Order: sequence, then structure tokens, then C-alpha cells
Amino acid sequence: MLKKMAKDQGIQEQLRLYLPDLPKGPLDAYRKKATFDWRRMKLAYDNLNTLKLKHDIWSFMESHPLFKHTEATRVLDEERHIATKRMYTIYNEQFLRFEKIAEDPKSFQAESEALFMFDSSLAVKISLTFRMFSNAIQGNGKSHHYPIIEDVEKAKIGGCFALTEVSHGSNAKGMRTTATYIPEKKQFVMHSADFEAAKCWVGSLGKCATHAIVYAMLISKGKNHGLHTFVVPIRDPKTLKPYPGVIVGDLGEKIGLNGVDNGFVMFNNYHLPKEAALDKLGGVDDNGDYQTPFRDPSKRFGAALGILSGGRVHITAISTYYLQKAIVIAIRYSAVRKQFGPENAKEETPVLEYQQQQIRLLPYLAATYAMKIFSVWLSCLHINMTISSYVGEDANAAARGIELHALSSAVKPLFGWTSRDGIQNCREACGGHGYLKAAAIGDLRNDNDANCTYEGENSLLLQQTSNWLLNVWARRETLTADDSPLGSLQFLQNVDQLLQEKCPWNSVQEFMEPANLIHAYKWLTAFMLKMTAEKVALLKGQGKDNFSAKNESQSYNAVTLSVVYGENYVLNNFYKAAQEFDDANCRAVLLKLVALYGSFLLEKHLATLYIGGYLRGEQGLCVREGTLSLCRDISPEAVALVDSLAPPDFCLKSVLGMSDGEAYKHIQSSVMTYPGSMTRPEWWRDVVYWQSYAPSKL
Amino acid sequence: MLKKMAKDQGIQEQLRLYLPDLPKGPLDAYRKKATFDWRRMKLAYDNLNTLKLKHDIWSFMESHPLFKHTEATRVLDEERHIATKRMYTIYNEQFLRFEKIAEDPKSFQAESEALFMFDSSLAVKISLTFRMFSNAIQGNGKSHHYPIIEDVEKAKIGGCFALTEVSHGSNAKGMRTTATYIPEKKQFVMHSADFEAAKCWVGSLGKCATHAIVYAMLISKGKNHGLHTFVVPIRDPKTLKPYPGVIVGDLGEKIGLNGVDNGFVMFNNYHLPKEAALDKLGGVDDNGDYQTPFRDPSKRFGAALGILSGGRVHITAISTYYLQKAIVIAIRYSAVRKQFGPENAKEETPVLEYQQQQIRLLPYLAATYAMKIFSVWLSCLHINMTISSYVGEDANAAARGIELHALSSAVKPLFGWTSRDGIQNCREACGGHGYLKAAAIGDLRNDNDANCTYEGENSLLLQQTSNWLLNVWARRETLTADDSPLGSLQFLQNVDQLLQEKCPWNSVQEFMEPANLIHAYKWLTAFMLKMTAEKVALLKGQGKDNFSAKNESQSYNAVTLSVVYGENYVLNNFYKAAQEFDDANCRAVLLKLVALYGSFLLEKHLATLYIGGYLRGEQGLCVREGTLSLCRDISPEAVALVDSLAPPDFCLKSVLGMSDGEAYKHIQSSVMTYPGSMTRPEWWRDVVYWQSYAPSKL
Repeated sequence: MLKKMAKDQGIQEQLRLYLPDLPKGPLDAYRKKATFDWRRMKLAYDNLNTLKLKHDIWSFMESHPLFKHTEATRVLDEERHIATKRMYTIYNEQFLRFEKIAEDPKSFQAESEALFMFDSSLAVKISLTFRMFSNAIQGNGKSHHYPIIEDVEKAKIGGCFALTEVSHGSNAKGMRTTATYIPEKKQFVMHSADFEAAKCWVGSLGKCATHAIVYAMLISKGKNHGLHTFVVPIRDPKTLKPYPGVIVGDLGEKIGLNGVDNGFVMFNNYHLPKEAALDKLGGVDDNGDYQTPFRDPSKRFGAALGILSGGRVHITAISTYYLQKAIVIAIRYSAVRKQFGPENAKEETPVLEYQQQQIRLLPYLAATYAMKIFSVWLSCLHINMTISSYVGEDANAAARGIELHALSSAVKPLFGWTSRDGIQNCREACGGHGYLKAAAIGDLRNDNDANCTYEGENSLLLQQTSNWLLNVWARRETLTADDSPLGSLQFLQNVDQLLQEKCPWNSVQEFMEPANLIHAYKWLTAFMLKMTAEKVALLKGQGKDNFSAKNESQSYNAVTLSVVYGENYVLNNFYKAAQEFDDANCRAVLLKLVALYGSFLLEKHLATLYIGGYLRGEQGLCVREGTLSLCRDISPEAVALVDSLAPPDFCLKSVLGMSDGEAYKHIQSSVMTYPGSMTRPEWWRDVVYWQSYAPSKL
Repeated sequence: MLKKMAKDQGIQEQLRLYLPDLPKGPLDAYRKKATFDWRRMKLAYDNLNTLKLKHDIWSFMESHPLFKHTEATRVLDEERHIATKRMYTIYNEQFLRFEKIAEDPKSFQAESEALFMFDSSLAVKISLTFRMFSNAIQGNGKSHHYPIIEDVEKAKIGGCFALTEVSHGSNAKGMRTTATYIPEKKQFVMHSADFEAAKCWVGSLGKCATHAIVYAMLISKGKNHGLHTFVVPIRDPKTLKPYPGVIVGDLGEKIGLNGVDNGFVMFNNYHLPKEAALDKLGGVDDNGDYQTPFRDPSKRFGAALGILSGGRVHITAISTYYLQKAIVIAIRYSAVRKQFGPENAKEETPVLEYQQQQIRLLPYLAATYAMKIFSVWLSCLHINMTISSYVGEDANAAARGIELHALSSAVKPLFGWTSRDGIQNCREACGGHGYLKAAAIGDLRNDNDANCTYEGENSLLLQQTSNWLLNVWARRETLTADDSPLGSLQFLQNVDQLLQEKCPWNSVQEFMEPANLIHAYKWLTAFMLKMTAEKVALLKGQGKDNFSAKNESQSYNAVTLSVVYGENYVLNNFYKAAQEFDDANCRAVLLKLVALYGSFLLEKHLATLYIGGYLRGEQGLCVREGTLSLCRDISPEAVALVDSLAPPDFCLKSVLGMSDGEAYKHIQSSVMTYPGSMTRPEWWRDVVYWQSYAPSKL
């Protein structure tokens, strides 16, 4: 007992070390209402190690001139310049060495969070230039490729990852970049037939990268062996000039993430040594005959799928960061923004007290916690799977890989969309001032937007999940626990009996019980799968081919199925984490958040619950009433809940969301220090003497 | 008969004059599938006069160097500079003289469309600087103010409109700018207590305006008479320097509309002559005693409300323009973007053929037509009301004004949100390339975003509608046609009997009949009103005061009620316009769009239809199936439908959406001509020699 107290006190001291007191001010009233310790709440997804890591990175940034915020948006070239300098500066510090990730897999996402919270372009670039490039060589290359990894580790060269082509993205089979083997020269000739075959959207290729991992059709002896990877020199590392045969350029401005120099590249009969092929998993021998070490291709394919899920796994975290920042800004501002009030009241009411403001923000606050806990868990799972794939056999690797592929193909879209909608709600909930660039919400929306289309456009990616689920449904009688090492198929337990059920609850209280919400979600997931399977069967029964039957069972069926499957898993993961959290005060609030997240999700599918016969009469009203009543319950906790999620103010960079709550003072300061804000424009004569360029006809 | 044919041919010739043939190319296949004439379809909302006006404006722009598009985003100061020069250049041309608006009220929106389609900042600025300013003086001033109108008409001065304060937007009663009358000097002293009382978000004030319409609390003899308007000199029209006592500046960057110089202003005991008061409707006499000409304040209040709806009426049109551009881009690109296809197919399939692509785009195509037709109608209604208020009595002016206030307070949010969601769907439906700045969808989203919060944050504004509807519900037994000159209360006919009904349809075909969809919407609107009224009554019965009862009946009730009321009116308006359209081929397609719009709207409220007992069993599935089947029917018409909506290519400025359908060629050209895209950056040494600023620790 004493030991536990001493340990507790040690934790408390360290928490205070990494998380200093927040400034006093207009937010105090709400902070006092909270029933839990905001620092302790961090341990729902962080640990002392990750808190220290983030603290170290942020302290470094805060003391470094390169990491100072400027009010005015930079022109494109300057955006790219500063993102590049920040990248090398941070990488050089080696805050998280590779071996530390294995010791504490959570540290991987902590580092990523620290970077994304400050500057998403910096974070994206560092990951592309160093990590993704090395991983691709590690996974697909042989020992003679390892010197390239050493070069990139020492930042002598910089990498990038070239898969997408101008006219082919998701349909990888349609890609047209070729690498033709010439046995006489022991060389490949890489070629792009035209601009439509150019590799594009390659992050860090526009200005910086010296080498690219290129996916190209391997052609040997007249036969196309499909997509293979090559490591291709693009620019001379000493001059940054492109090599002859390489036409490389920058894609220009994007909606967001403008510090990242996305580029395109075309190859004009570009000769590469045979060693450019990353051929561990398959390639040609010196004579041009195809060789592969695979014995049981299907199992290896499954394991490979799981590791390739890395991009999607990372995006679930990235989406979460953006929403995390937006919700902090919107809730803090809603707590200090006062408007209207009861008749004869002395003060106006904080807008956070209004029902419609609560319903727009608090379900997304709950979602942020669910997503945060889930994405950290998923990232650790993926790291552990990658490590075990390096060190040796894992009996369940194939099944786990396949399930992770399906799960990550559902949650990547789900989180991208949840952030999209949550950020938009935050933006509107901040009213007119939310439209200020200095409020910072617009940039979050613009950056998150990429999450909805990269690594697979969301709607399309969801087919990966629904295809698997439909396959599983067909063999549901014979499923075993081995088919679902991650437990995402638990909703299929006794599914026939489950689908006979009618919802037995008739009070708000019953509906809002987390266990009941979770049960209702189980029913919904099973029903969506059954309905989609029946729709496909119906279409095939009408004589449609596989392609048409799949196509015509997407909307309201397969697409929704995949989303619901993802939601169901995330909800269960959140519930489990909340129940297991050891601090009782935090746990109580987390369980309310679980209920709010669950009821908010369920409300969106009410119509389907009626169509499927699970709900009847006015039961749906209980879900709506319950959602509103949970919002009311959680509103006094909201400010402390976002204090726990918030990065330091210098990362948030929002006049509305600073930890001191002094929104109007920050607006004033920002507005008045914006370059040129108080002075007459240089071009004032074009206002007064407009006739000088438009001779008056008035 | 012959006469009709001759007239028809005359129309056809003029249509061809203003709407030249579209270039041949990859879109031809879809264009050939259309069953109607895309030029003729324009007449659903345009006429030959408005087509000529737009043609004249666009021809002028196309031939003028100031209206050339540049690839790279300008820095803020340059954005403002060019928007200002374009404003004077266009205004000087006087494309639409005031008297022409009375002759053809549709011309007002045609001019606005022509400007918004090219550059939204230009359009906003021209409207604020000239029209809104003049209108405010016309409406609230006396004859001695009219010289100011002449000055602004000759562009000797420039106006702006200052209502919102830093800490008070929607709550006008809380505003704190004061104008205190000093009888000895016959002057007002205007004062802002602090930055929170500064007027802000004032369009065109940041850099340009010389005069402002300012709303301030009129104080005389120690008494606060509430908000009144004043015309206040801000800057010297000869030098653009602010007058002493005026602290004026620019709000800096925003999420969008960065050509508009939104500003703020504080007054420091700034003395104004008594004539600064725009006191036609009330003010102080020389002695400081309050005088007003009103006899029956309630009637005049109603009429005034109707005229003040102008801002909201205009925003319904503005939201429509943005969606109009986005849907053109997304549908044209979806028709030429090919990806995947049936096994063994020779060509890949255009993505427009995929069900999930259709459901994301085609309902918004239908919505665009509904919104276009409605917003033109609403604009004409508002112009006619304004004119009749100038020329004399209109027996129904008060009731019409009140109803227009309620209706515009519903459709402004509805259209802002529909565009928000529609544009986002367009953005995602364009996949990765939609993230290019040159695709132009990001800017549309950023510009439209303002529509969701200005002239009243959407959720808040909807209370204006629901408050009126609840009031109407309480006296529904005694309503007459005079209560609803615009017919928006028709859903209350025989309402008690209506609400007893159960939905009688069980087939997709029955559900998709426009008249049936419209009937279902009538039921839904009535039910939402009844449910909200009962909720308010219940809360009051629990002892809640008016403020709390209203607050706690917003989400899922009053907010949804107002939206549904707006949707119901727009749907009916669309149906009527489609039925009355004289071209049979166009009419048939328009009626399909009516059905799609109706079923798409209804689907969003399926759960409420079940809760209210209107639907039961699997009826909801018919609505979903019907929506999908309408999408399939309309997809061959989609390209011609957007050809009809599309502005000229130089306005669209989208590499994905040009009328020749050559998306990849335009991407190539845009990417390769972007300044610096193919060259090594100036800062290449910071990549190669990064150790120069970050001494290596690697």
C-alpha cells in the first residue's frame, strides 16, 4: 500500500515535470469543475517515457529560432525551404533511435505526435525521406543494398517513394512505368511512355530527394512479371541536379501540406544497374529468368499485407492529431466566448453551455479520445508485427496480417472522415473568428483533407475490408479464433441467434449503458454484413457478373458495412481501455466518453436499425435523448479533457485556443502585428486615382 | 404554330450566340448520350437577357489583362491589390445600371454570377463598396444624405458596413460601440471602450473604404436608445489616411476570400456632425429628444425585416455558385477518369459509372439545379419587395416580410451546408488530383466556408425560423392565406389529419414519384414542427424558463425543423419550376432531378420518419434503392447537365474540369509551367550541406 502510494507520488512528480501548470485566466472556472486530474488522464494513451520524449522534442523546438511561428503565410518556395531545414535539424537530433522503438513501441507515435503537432509538413517529410525509404529497402532489398540505408541514415542522400502514376492510382495493375531487363548489359531500362505514366504525388521528390523507390513493371524476355520495386538515383547528391534521362519536377501548390514538395518523375530510357532491383521477394537472375524464394505464396502474401498496412496505420494517427488540435481550440474558445443568456442575467452565457454547441463538439471530443487510444494501440501492434516478421516465425502472422489489412483499410477512412467532420464542426462552432487564418482550424482541415484520398481514396479502400468480410461471411460456420487473432470478427459469435434479437431497452438510461451500446453495435455490424451479402447474392442471382454485383452493392451496403465494422472495433477497444484504466476518477469520465461515442455513432445508423427490425416505435428517441444528456454531463469536464489532449501553445498556434483562454487579447495582438495591418497599402494610389488605369465612364 | 417555330428558332440562334459550341474531345461520348439540349436547359433559370449580360461581362474580362489567371497564389497584399483594381475596372463598365434591375430582376443575379464565377473576392468587394453602402443610406437616410450616394456612385468614395464587434456578433443587443449626442455642439461622439468593442469583419475596410455605415448605441440625455446607424468618415478620400480618432486596420489572412480586405475599426471619442445619423426611421432632434415616425411599429418592423433579408438572400445565391463550379469540375473529371473495369474489358471504366461515385455526386447535381432555380426566384422576390417598398404601400408587405425573414433564415444555412457537403464530396470524388490547388476545389471550399458563419452563424440563424414556426403552430387553428403570402406554411393544411397518415407506398416506383416524395416531405415538416412544439411544452411543464426551454429543444428538434422547412419549400419550388418548363426533353430530365433531390433529402431523415410512425418495416429501403436507381438513370445526362451549369473555362480555372475534358494534358501544362517547378531551388545548398546549419551528430 505504502509502496503504491510512493510510486503514485513519483508518477505525479514526473507528470508535473513534463506538464507544467497551465496559466490562470478565464478558463479557470471550467477547470475547477472537472472531477479528474488532467495530467493523469494523459496515461490513457501515453506513458512517462513518451511524455518525456515529447517534452524533449518540444523543448528543443521552443528554444530554436527555426521553429518560430510567423503570422503571414509564406510563398510556396519558402514553405518548402523552411520545412526542409527543420527536417534536417530535427533528424540530426536523433530524438528517437531505432532501437528505442522496440523497447517502447509507444515512443514511435509519441515522436510522430510531437512533430505533427508543430508542423505537419516537417513531420511528413522526415518520415518519407528517412523512415519509409529505409523500410522499403529493409523489406525488399538484399545485403548489397544496405549501404544505401547507411547513407540515408547519415543523411548523405534522401529518399522518396514513387508508386502512383498520373492516370493510375488505386488500380496498381494498370501502371505503365516499365523496367526492361537487358541481360547483355546486366541493366534495366526504366521508361515512362508519356506524362500519364509519370510517377506523381511523390512526397519530397519535388525539390529534395536524391533517390526514389520506384514501382515498375518488370519485363524480361518479353514477359511482364508485374510490379516490382527498384531503388533509383534521381539527383546527384552533391549538386541536386537530376541525372540525364530523368525528368523530375514539382507538382506545385496543393490544398494543404505545402511544406511537402510533392513531385513527379518521368524516365526516358534510363539505364540502371541490375542491382537497382530490390529483389529479395522475387526478380530476374543475370540471364533474365524470373526467380522467387516463395514456397507458400498465400501465407507470405498475408504477412506482407500486414506490414504494408504501415501507411494506413500511420494515417489513423495523423487524422487523430489534426482533430486533437481542432477540438482543443474549439472547446477552449467555446468556454470563454460568451453570447446571450437568460433574461436579467448579469453575464452572458459561455457558448459551451448551449445544447447545439455541445452536440457539435462533445461527440467529437469523445471520438478524439477513442481515436487517440486506438491509434496508439494500432501503431504498437503494427510495430510488434514488423519486428516479429524480422526476427522469425509467428504462427499467426498470416491471419493477423490479413486481419490488420482489413481493419486498417476500414479505420483509415473512418478516422479521416471523422476528423474531416469534427474539424468542420470545430470551425463553425468558432463562428466568424474561426474563419481567421490565425485561428488555425482552416489549415487543419486542409492538411487532413489529404488523409481522405492518399494511400487509397477512402470509398475505394473500404472495398478491401468489405471484400474480406463477405468472404468471411460465406464461411462463417467454420470460423475459428485463428481466423481473427485481433478479435475483429467477434461480432459473428452466435450470429444467427444475434440477428433474431429485438432491442429490449426502452429508457434513456438503459440505452446509454456502455455494454448495451456495444451490444447494439454488434447487432448492427452483423446485420450490415448479412444485408450486404444478400444484396450481392441477389445481384448475382439476376445474372450480374462479379464486377457488376460488387459495384452495385457498394452504397448503403458494402461501404457502410466497412465503416460500421471499423466503428465497432474502435468502440470496443475504447470501452476496454476505459474499464482497465487504473485511476478511478479518470475511469468514470472515460466511461461517459465511451457512452457518448457509442450513442453518437449509433444515432447515425438509426434508420438501418429500424429497417433491420432491431428498433421499433420511438426507441430511436432514447438514443438521441441519451446523446444530449451525456453531452450535458460531460460539458463541465470538457476543458480539462482538452487540456489533457493539448500540445503546448507554440504548437497550437491558434489565437482562439491558447491555454490562458485570452482569445480576444490574442486576436488583438495577432491582428495588430500582422505585417502591414495598420499601414496604408503601397498601392493606395490605385484606390484614389483608379481612373489612371480605368478611364472613367461614370 | 409557324410563329412559335420562328420564335423558337430565334431563341436557338441567340443561345448559340452567347453559348458557343464546346470543344470536341473525351467528353463527347457522354455528351452524345444526353436526351436534351444543354443550351435550352439554361432557360430553367436564365433568360436571353441574362445570358447576354453574362456573355458581355465574361467577354470583357477575357480580353482584359487584369483578368488573367496566374498559377501561383499571390501574397496577401497582392491579392488585395488585384481584387481592388478589378473592382474599379468592372464597376466603371456599368454592365448593369440600377434601372435595368427593375426591368428584369433576374439580371441582378446574373451580374453577381458572372463576377463570382470569375473571382469571389472581386464580387464581394464590389457589392460591399457600392451596393450595400448605397442601399443602407437609401433605406435609413434622408435627402441630405443623398449626395453621399452620388459620391459613391461616381466612385469618389468607397463604403463598407460595420455591425459585428469583436466580442459580439449575433447578439446585437450586447454591442458596445456608443454614439453619444451632445446638443451644445450638435455632434455625436463615437467611442469604442476597448478592443472587444471594435467593429470587425468589415469587408473592404481593411485597406480601402473611406466611409462606413456604423451600428452604434445611440445615447442621449443619459438614455440608451439602442442600435442606430451612422455614416462615418474613416479615411480621407484624397490620401486614404485614417482621420484622427479612428484606429483602423486589416484583419489579416483568412481561410478564404483573401482578396477581400476585412478590417476592424475602433473610435476614440470621435466627433461626428449630427447629420452623420441615418435617422429616417428614428433618431434625436437637435435638443437630443428621441423622435420616430412610426405609427404601427410591428407592421413596419415586418417590412423592414424583409428588406434586411437581403444579405441572406444573396448568400443563398453565393453558396450555389460555389457548388455549381465544384460539381462541374467533379463530374467532367469523373467522366474522363477511367479506373478498373470488368475482367477482360478492353478499356477501363469511367469512374462516373461506379455506384459509389454516382451517389456522391449526382444528388448534389440535383441539389445544384434546385438551388439555382430557387436562388434566382428568391432574388427576384426580394428585389420586387424592395422596389414596392420604395414606391408605396403593399397590403401584404408586413406578412411577406416576416415570412421572407423566416424563409431566408432557413435557406441561407441550408444552402451553405449543402454546398459545404457537396463541394467536399466533389473534392474527394476527384481523388488525389483533387488535392492539387490547380483543381480549384480547395478554394471553393475555403470561400464557401464563410457562408456558414457570416450574416449569422448557421445554427443560430435557424432559430429565427424555428421561433416563428413555433409561434405559428400555437395559432395554427386560425391561420389564413394572409399569414403565408409565399406559401411556405402550406404544409399546415389539414395538419391534424396529415399527421395521422401512414406512408402507403411499398415499391421503389411509388416512392420515387415526385408528387409522393413531396407529400412525404409535407408530413415530415409537419411532424418536425409538432415534435419540437411538444418538446418545448414538455420543458416548460417541467418548470424551465423560456431561455432554457428554447435552448434544450434545439438539437434534433428546432434546428432540424428549420432545415426541413427550408428543404420542403425548395423542393416544392423545384417541382413547380420543372413542371412548368416548356421544353419537353428538358422537363423530363428536370423531373428526374426533382425526384433525386427529394429522395436524397428524405433519406437523411429516414430515422425520424420511423420514429414518427410514418414508415414501418423495410419501407426505408425503397428510398435508398430509389435514390440509387435515379442516380443510374441520370448518369448519362450528367455531363450535359453540368455543361449547362458551367461558366467559361477561364472562370472555372480547373485543370480537371475544362470543357475539352483533357484533364491530364491540363495537369501537365499547369505543373510544368508553375514558376520554378522544373528548376533546382535557390536553397539547394541547404539540402546538400545541411551540416552548415545543423552540425552533424549522426
